[in-house]
Amino acid sequence: MADSPSCDLKALSPLQLFERVTEQGEKVRALKAGKAPKDEIDAAVRMLLSLKLSYKTTTGQDYQAGLPPTDLVLINNGTTKEEDEDFVDPWTVQTSNAKGVDYDKLIVRFGSSKIDTDLINRIERAIGQKPHRFLRRGIFFSHRDMDQILNAYENKKSFYLYTGRGPSSQAMHVGHLIPFIFTKWLQEVFDVPLVVQLTDDEKYLWKDLTTEKAYEYARENAKDIIACGFDINKTFIFSDLDYLGTSTGFYKNIVKVQKHVTFNQVKGIFGFTDSDCIGKISFPAIQAAPSFSSSFPQIFNGKENIQCLIPCAIDQDPYFRMTRDVAPRIGQPKPALLHSVFFPALQGAQTKMSASDPNSSIFLTDTPKQIKTKINKHAFSGGRDTIEEHRKYGGNCDVDVSFMYLTFFLEDDDRLEQLKQAYTSGELLTGELKKVLIETLQPLIAAHQERRKQVTDEMVKQFMTPRKLAFEF
Amino acid sequence: MADSPSCDLKALSPLQLFERVTEQGEKVRALKAGKAPKDEIDAAVRMLLSLKLSYKTTTGQDYQAGLPPTDLVLINNGTTKEEDEDFVDPWTVQTSNAKGVDYDKLIVRFGSSKIDTDLINRIERAIGQKPHRFLRRGIFFSHRDMDQILNAYENKKSFYLYTGRGPSSQAMHVGHLIPFIFTKWLQEVFDVPLVVQLTDDEKYLWKDLTTEKAYEYARENAKDIIACGFDINKTFIFSDLDYLGTSTGFYKNIVKVQKHVTFNQVKGIFGFTDSDCIGKISFPAIQAAPSFSSSFPQIFNGKENIQCLIPCAIDQDPYFRMTRDVAPRIGQPKPALLHSVFFPALQGAQTKMSASDPNSSIFLTDTPKQIKTKINKHAFSGGRDTIEEHRKYGGNCDVDVSFMYLTFFLEDDDRLEQLKQAYTSGELLTGELKKVLIETLQPLIAAHQERRKQVTDEMVKQFMTPRKLAFEF
Repeated sequence: MADSPSCDLKALSPLQLFERVTEQGEKVRALKAGKAPKDEIDAAVRMLLSLKLSYKTTTGQDYQAGLPPTDLVLINNGTTKEEDEDFVDPWTVQTSNAKGVDYDKLIVRFGSSKIDTDLINRIERAIGQKPHRFLRRGIFFSHRDMDQILNAYENKKSFYLYTGRGPSSQAMHVGHLIPFIFTKWLQEVFDVPLVVQLTDDEKYLWKDLTTEKAYEYARENAKDIIACGFDINKTFIFSDLDYLGTSTGFYKNIVKVQKHVTFNQVKGIFGFTDSDCIGKISFPAIQAAPSFSSSFPQIFNGKENIQCLIPCAIDQDPYFRMTRDVAPRIGQPKPALLHSVFFPALQGAQTKMSASDPNSSIFLTDTPKQIKTKINKHAFSGGRDTIEEHRKYGGNCDVDVSFMYLTFFLEDDDRLEQLKQAYTSGELLTGELKKVLIETLQPLIAAHQERRKQVTDEMVKQFMTPRKLAFEF
Repeated sequence: MADSPSCDLKALSPLQLFERVTEQGEKVRALKAGKAPKDEIDAAVRMLLSLKLSYKTTTGQDYQAGLPPTDLVLINNGTTKEEDEDFVDPWTVQTSNAKGVDYDKLIVRFGSSKIDTDLINRIERAIGQKPHRFLRRGIFFSHRDMDQILNAYENKKSFYLYTGRGPSSQAMHVGHLIPFIFTKWLQEVFDVPLVVQLTDDEKYLWKDLTTEKAYEYARENAKDIIACGFDINKTFIFSDLDYLGTSTGFYKNIVKVQKHVTFNQVKGIFGFTDSDCIGKISFPAIQAAPSFSSSFPQIFNGKENIQCLIPCAIDQDPYFRMTRDVAPRIGQPKPALLHSVFFPALQGAQTKMSASDPNSSIFLTDTPKQIKTKINKHAFSGGRDTIEEHRKYGGNCDVDVSFMYLTFFLEDDDRLEQLKQAYTSGELLTGELKKVLIETLQPLIAAHQERRKQVTDEMVKQFMTPRKLAFEF
């Protein structure tokens, strides 16, 4: 490792580092173009990666070809203006960065903890299995009290999983599956029960919908959730509009949370105003209550204080910060959390996808042809304008949506790394990368559609019936 | 009627009228003291009543012996200061007037309608029975849309009754019975079903109580309500904490109301602030929802839009003003209302009674001896300081709590009028009036206690079980 650049690079300015990375990138492309020996090319690539790492360490941002570091440095040296900050709450995710929200900053701002290598290794030891690709790749990147869940688990104390969905339309997109794919894995590896809240009441309150329509969406969405493969004996899916009127424990927990949260607090956390309806203002308590096992007397046999773990996208964290604040005051344990990044829209990672824009993502109802067309037509590319430029400068995986989607759905770590290197070096063209994504997603979605077809109304009814699950607490 | 004073009195000032009433009062007392012939005394009393009526018409206030009209006139001529106004909301009733709240003003302020002789006569025609003493005596004095209820009733369209209680302690006092006594009568004469809401959730939110304690109070209070004699086949009593988790229709109506009421609105109606908990802020929707028949699918066979009539004390009107505002926007009929005055505390009519002060009223658990002691010791008297003065000037029924209580509980109109005249003229002493009240209340409360003893846990359970009632809609 004689050519390690780490020592002499520390003194360089961000711009000097930028130029060194650019030069090294050109050198790699030249070697490849000249069909140089593999060893020589590999060494140059290693040098390039080292330079990129130094660049990131210094500037706090990934190297982007053609984009000098001036602005990037400004964003990170404390002189950042308010409008440069990412904005994240349960209804809005905004960032001006093509790579998406700065999650490290979000961890600091929300006061959560990073899922680091130590925690991932500890999970691996606890379950005796390879951690899910969402953990390996930082898609679930942040947590609260996951160490306590593991402490308890290692001491043979069980817990339960709680996740949810706001059923705003019949069609779910692949991004909606992320928490469910991960939750299914958690349920399998920890062997614990799961409750899934469908907040049809929330959708009624926020959208121009009837309660009937909101409930219909909830039932439709339940089919897609069931199609993820949850075990019917370990999973309870519920619509708020329905379950609130059939549970003796749920409303009691809601009113307890509502007693301990003021309007001032929800104004601060969620940005409600005096013009908001009282339904919105009190709703956070309804999303909070399933964090407490006494909301499900039929599952937990009336037992309270069973620990809850909530896998969710980071934008839902405000609800659970509030819940964790209230929990000790109503004699309940704080729920633990695992936070995921947002699934990017086809058009780029600046915003969350919208279920109301059919071209903003791949929907679970899309045909293979639609998937192909959408990706080819709409997936934002980090590639160059011409093939020549692309071969010369390489593509940018950090902003390339096809590559991002592959990090979510391509299981094979080595293949993903190969694709990254080949695309970054310019070897792999945008069309070729898109083809890999299309070929990855088409069978996944076809399989999902096949499983969804098997979901009968009777199964939905059973999943959504309050009942004892196959667990003893 | 040659001596009718109406013609020449109109020109008199309030003070001149006051003097004429005082003179006439003295004349009546002199005639009585001199054992004048009954005819002569009766004529003088009629003249006195006429004078008092003129005084009231001119000043807007009842004549009070020894209290010249200056202040009274000020209160009514538009120069009244804000602090002279009565304050009435569901948690506070304040007035500086010993006779209690000015209900005519309240009707104007709340925008309700007076229950006048025409309406009382119409009720009498509709039901073919003498109206309840609470109607005859202006105890239920105000309404909203009672004419519509009668229109429908006359066209053989049925309705249902809804009333309620906030169960803040185990002990109920006689004042708590007023809406239930009247509701029982309404149920009998109109032959309609009744729902009774026990807002244990409200009490949990407002008081330092556990949900368990609040629910226990609800069940205890249900026994006193049942002891009023409601028909088990026509009456459903429910605790919010319990029923919300067992009804498929109740929460849906709550969330519908919550969508259509803003924080600004509840701030205006109920005086909530930003420091109030979100439970209080959203609670008005929970008191609103039983106004809609779809909250009780088990009773109404899922039928919506069945008209509701709510008998309640006037301080609950803010909830139902809000409900009536929302109703058309969620496709429901506005509930009609019958409003009662407040039951005065033993210490005087300035405030509502408090269940937390054992001496502020007669409790349903009081022994005959306690009833006697409380009335003799605490009932505010409108009598004079000495027997001599009392004989000379007479007592003041308008501020005498024993007399007020008799207007609530003494069924015999003639006897009540005799007592009034005898007390006003000085013939009847305070102790004698109190004795009549003691002898009226003791058997009433003993009978209530006897009926309450017959109320078994099994009956409470049956009343509180959501079920079909003996009605077809």
